[in-house]
Amino acid sequence: MTDSLQALAREIARELAAADLARGAPPTERDTASRNALLHPSIPSHTISAAATGLASSPGAPTTAAPPGVTFVRANARIADFIDHTLLKAEATSAEVDKLCDEAREHRFAAVCVNPVWVTRCAERLRGTPVQVATVIGFPLGANDAETKRREAALAVAHGATELDMVVALGHVKRGDWNHVADDIAAVVEGAVGTLVKVIIESAALTPVEIIKTCAIAREMRAQYVKTSTGFHAAGGPPPRRSP
Amino acid sequence: MTDSLQALAREIARELAAADLARGAPPTERDTASRNALLHPSIPSHTISAAATGLASSPGAPTTAAPPGVTFVRANARIADFIDHTLLKAEATSAEVDKLCDEAREHRFAAVCVNPVWVTRCAERLRGTPVQVATVIGFPLGANDAETKRREAALAVAHGATELDMVVALGHVKRGDWNHVADDIAAVVEGAVGTLVKVIIESAALTPVEIIKTCAIAREMRAQYVKTSTGFHAAGGPPPRRSP
Repeated sequence: MTDSLQALAREIARELAAADLARGAPPTERDTASRNALLHPSIPSHTISAAATGLASSPGAPTTAAPPGVTFVRANARIADFIDHTLLKAEATSAEVDKLCDEAREHRFAAVCVNPVWVTRCAERLRGTPVQVATVIGFPLGANDAETKRREAALAVAHGATELDMVVALGHVKRGDWNHVADDIAAVVEGAVGTLVKVIIESAALTPVEIIKTCAIAREMRAQYVKTSTGFHAAGGPPPRRSP
Repeated sequence: MTDSLQALAREIARELAAADLARGAPPTERDTASRNALLHPSIPSHTISAAATGLASSPGAPTTAAPPGVTFVRANARIADFIDHTLLKAEATSAEVDKLCDEAREHRFAAVCVNPVWVTRCAERLRGTPVQVATVIGFPLGANDAETKRREAALAVAHGATELDMVVALGHVKRGDWNHVADDIAAVVEGAVGTLVKVIIESAALTPVEIIKTCAIAREMRAQYVKTSTGFHAAGGPPPRRSP
């Protein structure tokens, strides 16, 4: 099983690399293109633009050569550039959301990630800063109608969201209803009208084959990222914290 | 605190009973009207209609007189009439949903309760039976836009849902943003166009005063029920089960 799985992963990686080549996608690391096709998503555009503004690089940070086998994403990277400062608990208040935004601005995090009801507030509070406003769609169960997800995505973008983390239709993944899985992702990508879409696949609840297949579909439907976990599922992510 | 809380509860109960009287609501138990106003919701309409068809009463069940201080909901009640057979886990499959429906039909449960993506399937499978199709709106976090909840409710009703369990805007309850809480519930009641709406308040995460105030608002916005818990919150409901 493991052997055939490895073979399947290699085959999919080769196919994806060939597809990239065919449509003239930008070249990746020369010798590792097919091996990395599934593993190394491109750098978030906002990270690059943050670097371009000069805001993001840590002054005085030493420029170190990458050790063999390692590719630095870029020189002088700051950890903060890769942090989505996140507050998704149901009982989060406006005061906590404001604090989240202020901390993200202060430390120049990549983004805040909040529930949809807070998007307008965050977009206003973070206006003029490089901090992105990420929100979640069909979260955390993913078992809404595709139409509901599409509308929720469109509404979030209208309210100022610049990144959307959608949850995949997990039950349909488990059953192999791949057309539904694809249509569901496509609905959010369509609703997002160009805004960055990440597909949360709840990988701890999936088999390796389901993970590979779901990733391939997410890519085919033109979502930009796959994420592992909502953090709310019993199978994985941080364990729920009991309130005092 | 406890004393003033009791006084507040009594005051609210008196006000609600007076409001009922003023608008000619059907009389409740004579001597306990104000005391019970917050505590005893009316019997679900589908339970009554099930009784009227004669389907619901257990043949041969003895008719027992209620002991002092206890009011039977009705004679010969079956436990099954009060069970919503529920499957809300993210990874539930079509096969599991079908099994849920078949069990509900076999045991004549009051309803099945499923995520919105399964409503059409359940409505078709349970057509011609007395089993209701309940679904959830803004579940389990309740932190969606009111507009998203309204549309999700309307879509669920269009797909055949006959009961809607919405999750309250919990962060706004915690902050005392009562106008938002009210508008949010009103949006779902409006989207439901007459279909039964239950408001899940996640009571384990609330203070007693927040519970009372939220219940009063739910009633004012003409939701028919209040429910305690989603079952997904760390503060209460069944603990998450770790997948094998």
